Amino acid sequence: MFSLGVSDHVMVAHSFADPFFGPAQRLHGATYAVELTVRTPSLGPHHVVMDIGALRGILRQVLATLDYSNLDEHAAFPGRTSTTERLAEFVANSVAQELLKVPLDAAPPAPATVSVTLRESPVAWASYEVALGQGAVTS
Amino acid sequence: MFSLGVSDHVMVAHSFADPFFGPAQRLHGATYAVELTVRTPSLGPHHVVMDIGALRGILRQVLATLDYSNLDEHAAFPGRTSTTERLAEFVANSVAQELLKVPLDAAPPAPATVSVTLRESPVAWASYEVALGQGAVTS
Amino acid sequence: MFSLGVSDHVMVAHSFADPFFGPAQRLHGATYAVELTVRTPSLGPHHVVMDIGALRGILRQVLATLDYSNLDEHAAFPGRTSTTERLAEFVANSVAQELLKVPLDAAPPAPATVSVTLRESPVAWASYEVALGQGAVTS
Amino acid sequence: MFSLGVSDHVMVAHSFADPFFGPAQRLHGATYAVELTVRTPSLGPHHVVMDIGALRGILRQVLATLDYSNLDEHAAFPGRTSTTERLAEFVANSVAQELLKVPLDAAPPAPATVSVTLRESPVAWASYEVALGQGAVTS
Amino acid sequence: MFSLGVSDHVMVAHSFADPFFGPAQRLHGATYAVELTVRTPSLGPHHVVMDIGALRGILRQVLATLDYSNLDEHAAFPGRTSTTERLAEFVANSVAQELLKVPLDAAPPAPATVSVTLRESPVAWASYEVALGQGAVTS
Amino acid sequence: MFSLGVSDHVMVAHSFADPFFGPAQRLHGATYAVELTVRTPSLGPHHVVMDIGALRGILRQVLATLDYSNLDEHAAFPGRTSTTERLAEFVANSVAQELLKVPLDAAPPAPATVSVTLRESPVAWASYEVALGQGAVTS
Repeated sequence: MFSLGVSDHVMVAHSFADPFFGPAQRLHGATYAVELTVRTPSLGPHHVVMDIGALRGILRQVLATLDYSNLDEHAAFPGRTSTTERLAEFVANSVAQELLKVPLDAAPPAPATVSVTLRESPVAWASYEVALGQGAVTS
Repeated sequence: MFSLGVSDHVMVAHSFADPFFGPAQRLHGATYAVELTVRTPSLGPHHVVMDIGALRGILRQVLATLDYSNLDEHAAFPGRTSTTERLAEFVANSVAQELLKVPLDAAPPAPATVSVTLRESPVAWASYEVALGQGAVTS
Repeated sequence: MFSLGVSDHVMVAHSFADPFFGPAQRLHGATYAVELTVRTPSLGPHHVVMDIGALRGILRQVLATLDYSNLDEHAAFPGRTSTTERLAEFVANSVAQELLKVPLDAAPPAPATVSVTLRESPVAWASYEVALGQGAVTS
Repeated sequence: MFSLGVSDHVMVAHSFADPFFGPAQRLHGATYAVELTVRTPSLGPHHVVMDIGALRGILRQVLATLDYSNLDEHAAFPGRTSTTERLAEFVANSVAQELLKVPLDAAPPAPATVSVTLRESPVAWASYEVALGQGAVTS
Repeated sequence: MFSLGVSDHVMVAHSFADPFFGPAQRLHGATYAVELTVRTPSLGPHHVVMDIGALRGILRQVLATLDYSNLDEHAAFPGRTSTTERLAEFVANSVAQELLKVPLDAAPPAPATVSVTLRESPVAWASYEVALGQGAVTS
Repeated sequence: MFSLGVSDHVMVAHSFADPFFGPAQRLHGATYAVELTVRTPSLGPHHVVMDIGALRGILRQVLATLDYSNLDEHAAFPGRTSTTERLAEFVANSVAQELLKVPLDAAPPAPATVSVTLRESPVAWASYEVALGQGAVTS
């Protein structure tokens, strides 16, 4: 099994509607350090999972839709539900969609999975993993 | 598949009885940087694996039983056997037991796994993974 | 010359009024990883710069006034001017004030300096250094 | 499931023949920070996956065949194909071969897997996982 | 005293002519993680040392002259002398020259210093500090 | 101003006699991640502060006198006073003494300073700086 990983980061404001979150109900913010990993059992014709620069470009394109914004106003997180887990799911699913547009000889060989980890502080992080073209990985 | 991770650390003394360990048979010590990850295929009603603060609290409670102590005298490591692997197993199993006490709507949705990584130095670490409520993960 | 350092973090929302900041004029947020260093030419009666736990407590107390808040509404940053540099200055000055209240035998031996570094992302940080009881360090 | 990890690094020159790689077709180089993880469902008689020092020694022995060299001239990467993925595969397979020579009571209990991650920069890395004595892990 | 720091990285090949360097006389390579810090006693009109994005842009522009190249052929390191110290000096001096071209209201307030640290591996790094517009810092 | 840095680590047990230290009066331990920096205003004949391998060798030699030991029994810390600050001072002074034995053309050009930082956990560290051949740096 091979994997390729790239990282980037995003800076956002948000708050939570659910009283479950205590002080995080107040408007605050976070820098999310983002790690994206693509796993695949074999390599393509160029001896890589895919091009590092292309993968970083896709991650940046997805993060640009979130960067320097207030997630309370983002359609993907209705009712102020932009938890780190939901954000990781959103980024992983968005990256997976973009990967389906990559020309076959430059795309990760099937079957591939996409995993996204968001580090919100030095002491907490969350991840989501999805199978490319097939939906959530459940085991 | 979702996961949530939190980190903490613990400072202990210990030694090993087994000649296999060479100089580490002498009384020495370690700072273990501890990473705890809970994995689950779905999110609970609050859009999270579980509350980050609650998970950090459980980890701290478990580590407090080890912190600033000499593991040679700890009942969980008879015969001076507190290897990093056994420590990771102890912390993961202890956290898993505590997680079973969390009210259902605040607990990780089943089936969940608990993984603990202990970093003993910049160049070495060990992990143990256990299925919540079912015992060791073996594949 | 001795120094003692401790770290913590804080999660805030903010925006900038000055068009100089481009997209950061929009409401966004950040996790600041905070490193606090106290420097002093000698050690006190306990062979330390000061107690690590006490220093971490002071840093937490200062950061608690910022955590989970919107800095656009904070009196220390009028006109939406909470740049990383101004935040580092605020934290360093606040810590310095608290250090002046520590009993003499537990305080850093004079002359001490306080330095605060805020890491806003994996690729950017800012610092401010102040002399304890005397104001800004200028050379 | 237990795992044990150790790290090291290697400094090499290389280039790529394939136009796919753009500017990396030019002779350049990299420091690869290497993380080696051995996973096994149980511990051996010494309460460890295997000895940390022995595992670090095997990793160093394998990396020494690459260190301070030009990979364009290395037999394992014909036609200038030393991508990070192929390097991870080479290191993992080489370590796996060495592990088969370790005496049974000091070796990782079967069935074990070997995983190698190479970090080529702060923003990119690749991994390869192989089952000890059985070949590539494919799921 | 304020400071602002940004980071980037560069991947190069090189070798050393001097027998002093042992195995590093062979053609090899390195990823240098680069940290650039600008120090200044006061802030400019925008409450910053300078714009983070502008500083990152300058660092990238300087590193682009080195990236994916063989330093043995670079005019700044005659006789194969591209030690980490000489590289740090080259990057710091080049950044300092670029900073002198920044419009006054966007430049670091004088007197400023520029410091560059290059991390060549997880266990080794070198730095060089220069006073902006005045040459090497010597104390 | 140039500097060269190298890192290593050491694992020790210790306790403190002084009631000031609360729970750390109990026998416990630590992994200290050690960073050693040598600063000098100019480079020697080989275009380096000194050889990285030689500096790492000196640091290892000094740390070997502490590794896998109980500092309560070490002559340098009478009365159980092995605080992180005192340990940093001991390591820096010991390294400085060794550096004075290095042949002139391989030693750091005078005047040099030696600084040692010990990281005892992810949230705490201490440093000591000494002028080579002249004693403690006090400003």
